[in-house]
Amino acid sequence: MSNAKPVVIIAGIGAGGGTGGASARAFAKEGYSVALVARNVDSLRAFESDLKGSGVDAAAFPISSYSTADVSGAFQKIRTHFAKPSYEIRAAVWNAVSHAVRKSFLDVTPEDVKGTSEGIEGTFAFAREIILEFKENSVDPSTGARGVLIFTGATASIRGNVTTSAFSAGKHAERALSQSLAKEFGKQNIHVAHAVIDGGIITPRTKERRNDPEWEQNEAVRLNPESIAAGYVYLAKQDQSSWTWELDLRPAHEKW
Amino acid sequence: MSNAKPVVIIAGIGAGGGTGGASARAFAKEGYSVALVARNVDSLRAFESDLKGSGVDAAAFPISSYSTADVSGAFQKIRTHFAKPSYEIRAAVWNAVSHAVRKSFLDVTPEDVKGTSEGIEGTFAFAREIILEFKENSVDPSTGARGVLIFTGATASIRGNVTTSAFSAGKHAERALSQSLAKEFGKQNIHVAHAVIDGGIITPRTKERRNDPEWEQNEAVRLNPESIAAGYVYLAKQDQSSWTWELDLRPAHEKW
Amino acid sequence: MSNAKPVVIIAGIGAGGGTGGASARAFAKEGYSVALVARNVDSLRAFESDLKGSGVDAAAFPISSYSTADVSGAFQKIRTHFAKPSYEIRAAVWNAVSHAVRKSFLDVTPEDVKGTSEGIEGTFAFAREIILEFKENSVDPSTGARGVLIFTGATASIRGNVTTSAFSAGKHAERALSQSLAKEFGKQNIHVAHAVIDGGIITPRTKERRNDPEWEQNEAVRLNPESIAAGYVYLAKQDQSSWTWELDLRPAHEKW
Amino acid sequence: MSNAKPVVIIAGIGAGGGTGGASARAFAKEGYSVALVARNVDSLRAFESDLKGSGVDAAAFPISSYSTADVSGAFQKIRTHFAKPSYEIRAAVWNAVSHAVRKSFLDVTPEDVKGTSEGIEGTFAFAREIILEFKENSVDPSTGARGVLIFTGATASIRGNVTTSAFSAGKHAERALSQSLAKEFGKQNIHVAHAVIDGGIITPRTKERRNDPEWEQNEAVRLNPESIAAGYVYLAKQDQSSWTWELDLRPAHEKW
Repeated sequence: MSNAKPVVIIAGIGAGGGTGGASARAFAKEGYSVALVARNVDSLRAFESDLKGSGVDAAAFPISSYSTADVSGAFQKIRTHFAKPSYEIRAAVWNAVSHAVRKSFLDVTPEDVKGTSEGIEGTFAFAREIILEFKENSVDPSTGARGVLIFTGATASIRGNVTTSAFSAGKHAERALSQSLAKEFGKQNIHVAHAVIDGGIITPRTKERRNDPEWEQNEAVRLNPESIAAGYVYLAKQDQSSWTWELDLRPAHEKW
Repeated sequence: MSNAKPVVIIAGIGAGGGTGGASARAFAKEGYSVALVARNVDSLRAFESDLKGSGVDAAAFPISSYSTADVSGAFQKIRTHFAKPSYEIRAAVWNAVSHAVRKSFLDVTPEDVKGTSEGIEGTFAFAREIILEFKENSVDPSTGARGVLIFTGATASIRGNVTTSAFSAGKHAERALSQSLAKEFGKQNIHVAHAVIDGGIITPRTKERRNDPEWEQNEAVRLNPESIAAGYVYLAKQDQSSWTWELDLRPAHEKW
Repeated sequence: MSNAKPVVIIAGIGAGGGTGGASARAFAKEGYSVALVARNVDSLRAFESDLKGSGVDAAAFPISSYSTADVSGAFQKIRTHFAKPSYEIRAAVWNAVSHAVRKSFLDVTPEDVKGTSEGIEGTFAFAREIILEFKENSVDPSTGARGVLIFTGATASIRGNVTTSAFSAGKHAERALSQSLAKEFGKQNIHVAHAVIDGGIITPRTKERRNDPEWEQNEAVRLNPESIAAGYVYLAKQDQSSWTWELDLRPAHEKW
Repeated sequence: MSNAKPVVIIAGIGAGGGTGGASARAFAKEGYSVALVARNVDSLRAFESDLKGSGVDAAAFPISSYSTADVSGAFQKIRTHFAKPSYEIRAAVWNAVSHAVRKSFLDVTPEDVKGTSEGIEGTFAFAREIILEFKENSVDPSTGARGVLIFTGATASIRGNVTTSAFSAGKHAERALSQSLAKEFGKQNIHVAHAVIDGGIITPRTKERRNDPEWEQNEAVRLNPESIAAGYVYLAKQDQSSWTWELDLRPAHEKW
C-alpha cells in the first residue's frame, strides 16, 4: 500500500457527542485523518476545534443540504484538503441524521416525506462519491479493501411500525442500498457494511431530553456511542476473507 | 353495511395488460366499480373503453405525476365521480410503476434516484388519501374491514442486489410503509397487504420484448396477471380474524 | 387429469375444532375425500363420525407417534383405503401439534427437547411420504400441481423468544424444511407452502381455557380455524404461474 | 471481578484446523484457559498437545456423543479440572459439527434426520449447562457480562435450499435457540450471539478436498478460521451497552 495517510469521512456529526463524533475519535485513534461533514456549521466547527485540540488531523466541511450538488461540492473540498498522494480516503461512515420523525401516519406531512426522500437522495449521492473515490485506491494488504463504507441503521431499517412510517421508509431504502453496494462492490474489494442500532444512544442531547439519571448510569439499557464506534473500527479492520455486511447492536437489557 | 356500490381504485395500469389491468377486471367481477389512475392518458383511456365495453362501471383519472398535489387532485375527481352515498371506495391497489431501472450503481443517475424518491412521495400521498377515505367507511360485516389497500411489491422489496440499487431502495421503502400502515390501521379495521412478486409477469409488453414462445407457453416459468389479481381478491375477501400482510407469488419453476 | 377422486391428508386434528378440523371440512367442500391422521384415537374417531355424518368421504388413521415407522405405516393404510385408480392423494396439511411448551429456557426438560426433535423427525417422515406420493401423480391442468403440501407455522417459526426456546426451534426447523421442499420440488410441479399463524386461534379448547366471552365474540382479536382453512384452500387452488410459499395470517387487531 | 482465570469452552474442534481450533487459539491469546470438547479423541488429543506446546493452559474433554448425559458428563469434568475459585468459565463457542449432509431431500435418510435432531438435543444440552454456569458468575465490569455464548451458524441457518433440507432444519433450530437465549438472558447479563458463516472456510480438510491452489491463495474467496475467531473475540469484548446478537461473515468476493 501507499504511504498515504488514511482519511475517514464522517457524515452526520450533530454536536459531536453521538455516533458520528465517537466514530471520528475512534478512527483517529487508529491513525486516520478525519473529514467531518454536517449541516450545522456551528457545532461542526466546535467539534472540529475539539478534535484538533486533541491532536487529531481533522477538518470540517459544512454542507447546506445533502443534495447531489452539495454532496459533490463537499467531496471536492475534501479531496483538495486531504489531497493525494499525502492522503487517501479509506473509510466513510454515513451517519447523516435521517428525517427521524415519529408520529402517527396521518400526522406525517408532505414535508416529512420530502425529508425522507431527500435523505435517500443524499445517501445515494454520498455513496456514489465515496465508491468512486475508493475505486481509485490500491488494495490494503491487511484488509483486502480499497475502502470501507459503514451505514448507521436502526430498528426502523428492518421493521416498519406504528409511528415510524416516514422514518422506516427511509431507513429501509438505505439498508437496501447498502446491500446492493455490498454485493456489487465486494467483488471490487470495497467493503460495505450496515449496523442496526436497536435502542437509545446516550448523547448530551438524549441525556438532556430524558433527564433520567438511572438511564444514564445503567450501561445495560442504552448504547454508548464509543461502543458503536468500536464496532465500526472492528468492521474496518476485518480482512477480506471474512467481511460482515450487517451487525446489530443493542443494550444487554433491551427488550426485542 | 351500506347499500353503496363498492369502488376499487387501481393506480398503475400501463396498457392494461398487466397486474393493474387484471386487478381491475378481477375486482369488477366481484361487483366493484373501478377507478383507474395512471399517467399515460392514451392507454388509460383505451383500457377504460375496453372495460366499459365489457360492462364494467369504470372511469379513468389520468394523472400527470404522482406528486402529492396530483394524487390529491385525482382523489377529488374520483370522489366526485363515484360519489357517496351511491358509491363507497372500499379497495385500492397500488401498482404504480416504480422507477424500475436495472443498472450498475455507478450508472444510476441523479434522475434515477429522483425517480425513486418521487415514487416514495407518490406512495405516501396515495396511502394518505386512501386511508383517510377508508376511515369514513363503515365496517364491512363480511370482512371486518373499512377497506383494503394492496401494494404490489417485488423481489427487490426484500433484497438489494447488484443492479437494483435504485429500484430496491424504493421498493424497500414501499414495503416498510405497507408494514407501518398494516400495524397502525389494522386496529382501525383497515387491511393493508403487500405482495412480493418474484419473477417475470407475462404482459403484451414483456411478450414483445422477450419474443420467446416457450416462455409464453410455459405457465410454470412466468406469472399471469390474472393469477396475481386472484391473490388480491383473496386478500380483499379475508375476514378480520385472519388477515394477511404479506404473501409471495412466484412461478412454480422459478429458482429462488 | 385422471378421474380419480382427490384426497387430502390432514395430520394433526386434535378434537376437530381447530385448524386441522376446519381444513378437513374446507377441502371436503372442494370435493376432496379426507384422510385424518392424529394420535388421540377417541377424538379422531369422533371427528371422523362427525365428518361422515355430514356426508364427507372421510377415514381416520390413528397413529401412536410420528416416528418414521408409524408415519410410514399410516401412509400404507391410507394408500390401501383411498386406493388408486379411484383415488389420488392431491393435498396434505401438516398441522401435527408440535411440542408447544412455553416456559423459561431453564425449565425446558430433556423430554421437552426430545418432543421438539421427535416433531422434526415426524415432519421429515411425513414430508417424505407425501412427496413420494405426489411424484406419482399427473399434473393437474388447473393448478399445474401434482400435489400441494401446506405447513401450519406460527410466529415462533420466524422468531425465537423468551419462553419459546423449544417450540421455536422446532418451528424454525419445520419452516426451513418447507422452504427447502418448495425450492426443490416446485420445479417438479409440487407446491409446498407455509402459513405463519400469528395470534390465538379460537377452538373449543381455547374457549374453555380462556373463558373470556369478549375474546370469543370479537373476531378481530383471534383467528377462526375456518378462515385459516380458507387460506389453505386458496393456496391449493393457485395456478402454477403464481404459487405462494409463505403467507402470514393474523387478527386485524393483533399487535405485531 | 474475581481474580479467577477465565475459561472458554470450545465444542467442536475437528482436527483443530478450523473455526474451533482458531477460536481456541484466539481466546488463549486473550488470556483464557481453554476447555476443548469434541468427539474424535485422537485429533482432540493431538490439538490439546499442540496448544499446550504453545504454552496454552488447555485441556481436552472427549465426548462420545452430544447426548444430554454426555454433555452433562463433560461439563462435570470441566468444572473439576478448571475449578473455582482459580478458574471461571466465562465464554463458550458452540461449533459442534452439525450433521451437514448435502443431498436431495429424497436421499435424506432417517439416520440423517436423526443426526439433525440429535444435533438439536446436543445444542440444547450444551446451552443449558453453560447458561447455568454463567449464572453463577459475577458481572465482568468491562463487558457487563457474566459470560458469552457464541454459536457458529451458516447460510443454512437463514435459508432452506435444494440440498440442505436436513442441514438447514438443524441450523434454523440452532439459530432460533440462540435468539431465544439472547432475549431471555441478555436481561441477566449473559451475552448470546450467532454468526452466519456464508462461504467456504479454509482448513486442512477443505484444502485437501478441493485441491485448488487458486482457492487457497485468494483470500477474497474463502474464509480464514482466524478471521472468524477474531470476530468471536470482538463479540466477547463488546460492552453491555452494545451487544450484537448476529453478524454475518463472508469472503469479499462471495456471491450472495
